[in-house]
Order: sequence, then structure tokens, then C-alpha cells
Amino acid sequence: MGPARRTLELFYDVLSPYSWLGFEVLCRYQHLWNIKLQLHPALIAGIMNDSGNKPPALVPRKGQYMNKDMLLLGQHFQVPLNLPKDFYNVILKKGSLNAMRFLTAVSMEQPELLEKVSRELWMRIWSRDEDITESQSILAAAEKAGMSPEQAQHLLEKISTAQVKNKLKETTDAACSYGAFGLPTTVAHIDGKTYMLFGSDRMELLAYLLGEKWMGPVPRAQYARL
Amino acid sequence: MGPARRTLELFYDVLSPYSWLGFEVLCRYQHLWNIKLQLHPALIAGIMNDSGNKPPALVPRKGQYMNKDMLLLGQHFQVPLNLPKDFYNVILKKGSLNAMRFLTAVSMEQPELLEKVSRELWMRIWSRDEDITESQSILAAAEKAGMSPEQAQHLLEKISTAQVKNKLKETTDAACSYGAFGLPTTVAHIDGKTYMLFGSDRMELLAYLLGEKWMGPVPRAQYARL
Repeated sequence: MGPARRTLELFYDVLSPYSWLGFEVLCRYQHLWNIKLQLHPALIAGIMNDSGNKPPALVPRKGQYMNKDMLLLGQHFQVPLNLPKDFYNVILKKGSLNAMRFLTAVSMEQPELLEKVSRELWMRIWSRDEDITESQSILAAAEKAGMSPEQAQHLLEKISTAQVKNKLKETTDAACSYGAFGLPTTVAHIDGKTYMLFGSDRMELLAYLLGEKWMGPVPRAQYARL
Repeated sequence: MGPARRTLELFYDVLSPYSWLGFEVLCRYQHLWNIKLQLHPALIAGIMNDSGNKPPALVPRKGQYMNKDMLLLGQHFQVPLNLPKDFYNVILKKGSLNAMRFLTAVSMEQPELLEKVSRELWMRIWSRDEDITESQSILAAAEKAGMSPEQAQHLLEKISTAQVKNKLKETTDAACSYGAFGLPTTVAHIDGKTYMLFGSDRMELLAYLLGEKWMGPVPRAQYARL
């Protein structure tokens, strides 16, 4: 018997490109490390608001830096990240509320598709500069991820229910109660201790805390424990 | 003949604990990678002011997170980082102006001791919670780093000269003109391209850009190219 399985909770929003990077790294390592990964769709706007944090791009030089940083990290992580042309409108105005409610509904009714649907939404907003706010955009992402059109339509109808709205709010509140001030936030439960890690750049530290091997953002299959 | 040597400029301030982490990693790799490392003492207060950035600890949850993050990274990086008891007074009020002027004088007159004197100042403020603003504190750090008491006294007298004050200002301005909004800032000159990297958590990305091997924050001696 190996060591006890450790749980990682990943809180993310598809509006956040760094969430995408953290998500892909943890999805890659979930079968290499002795961990159980739980994906938690949350709302970054709610976390920024609750913590009093401000979007980093509001400091102009930080915004300019992040644009380059994201693209370099995308290459390094092998995640096809591209910048939306109209950052202000796409990120700061349109936001991700419906998309994250949809992912919440997926997590409740079809959790086995959550990883794929999340990725398809990121592919739209952060790779191909496509909308994620309209119904047809969300349905297209769900179908590309392998969901039937009927099921996608059914889940889309659920996003206006109190059940789904409350669940997204609860998940966002849970991240806040762990101390989150942005996304991605990874909460690692290891040997009775809880660690909250912010950002996509604490994955090597996470490996250290887990006592697992860090093989970079693109671990090779041959190192897999299979 | 190996590949052309690439230059890394590290801008840092001993007031910044993440600067210490970045500094130690680059000092470790400077003999393992095909690079030339240039250490540039700069003033974080000047960079924050010029960029309009604010200390992250002003968002309370971010401050709480960073305290834990720093200590975990200190363990992982094998850098003996500890928090000063009176963060507000030590970091936000007392600052590092004289210490950074002294390091500037060291960089001008005794550059071979710059690495060691910088480290001794970090050991004072960010490990043993000792003062770095008084003359005797700065002299103690310099002597611990191997400087003669006479030379230390000579350099201390230089910190009030226009030459040293201007040099620190020029270095800080140079960081700003590369787009810095905080420290550490690493400027990498690789194959005719210039990359500005912020923080102590872009060193694996730096290895990727250099085409060098990342062996974690504590690379082992046996991997050295000697």
C-alpha cells in the first residue's frame, strides 16, 4: 500500500489565464502524483471583491508585463494561450458569470466532463479570442468537450436556478474562507495540514510539500507511476 | 567553444525577501549555467513609487498569505528566511536607503564583495531580525562578509556623496526603464533579445529561455559543468 492519498482542491475561473496554466499542470500531475484532484469552478470577480484585491493590470507596467509573461509561460507550459484583442471589454466588462455557472452545473450533474468543458471554454476565451458569454458559445464548448446537445441544453437551463447560483457562491465563499485573494488558488490537504497556494507558479513548491518529484510544467509520460 | 555567454542583470533590494530568494537561486546557478550574472542594488521604494504599484501586504489577505508563502519558500529554497516581528516599522517605516547606498558603494569600489555583503544584510533583516539602518549595523554586515574595518568605514562615508546617491538612482531608473514595478527584477539578454522577469518564481522560465537545465532552487553540485 502506498502513502495515503492527499487531496488538492483547485479553485479556478476561466476568465483567469493563470488559472488555465495551473489547471493544466495539475491535470497532468493528477495521474503522476499520489493525489486526488478536486476541480472547483469559482468566480474571480467575487474573490477580488471580497478580499479587496484589485486586478493587477490596473498598474499599467504590471499589465504590460503580464501580457508578455502569460505568452512566455504559455509556450513553456505548452498551453496555447493568446491574448484577447479587446482585453478591457472581454475580461473586465463581459466577465465569466454564465460560463462559471455552467461549469458549476456540470460539476453537479456531469462531473466527469468538468475538466474537458473547462478546457474548451479556456480555448475559446484565452486561445481563439471567442465569446464565452452567449448561450451558443457555452453550448459549443460543451459539445466540443463531448457532451450531447440535449444534456448541454439541459445544463444551460439550470444556470438560472437558485441551486446552481448558490453552489457557485458557496464555492467562491469557500475559497475566500481559505484566504483566497485571486485565482488560481490551490488548497492542499497533506498529512492533516492545510496549505493555501496562490497562482500557477507554486506547483514546484506543492511538489516539495507533497514529497513528490517536480518534472516541470510538462511532465513526461515515462515518469508516470503506472 | 561553448555558446555565447548570456548576461543576466538582477535588480534587488535587501528590504525585499523575494529578492533574497531570487538572488540565492541566481548566485547558485551562475556557475552552472552559461551566463554572466550582474548584481544591481536598487531601491524598491523608488520602483514602487515610479510604477504606481503598492506593497502587496496592503491587501490584508495577501499580506497574511505572503508571510506563510515566504517561510515555505525559504524552507524549499534553503534560505533561512524569518519574519521581522515588527513588519510595519522595519519594512514600511525604516526602509533600506542607507543599506542600498552602501551596497552601491560596494558595487563601485569592491564589487567582488557585493554578493557577500548583500547576503549579510539579508541575514540581518530577514533572518535574525536585526537592524540594517544604523552605521554600526552596516559595518557589522560588511565585516562579516570579509571587508576590513577601514574599508567598511571608507565606504560608509561614501554613502552621503552625490556620486553614490546618483548611482543608486540611476540603477533604480534603469530597472524602471526595463518596465520594473517591484523587485526582484531579472533582465535577461539572450541572443539579442531582452526579457524582463519579475519575482523569484520565474527562474524555471528563465532556464527555459536560456535553454539550460532547471534543477530546482537548490541545484546539486554534481550537476555542475566544471
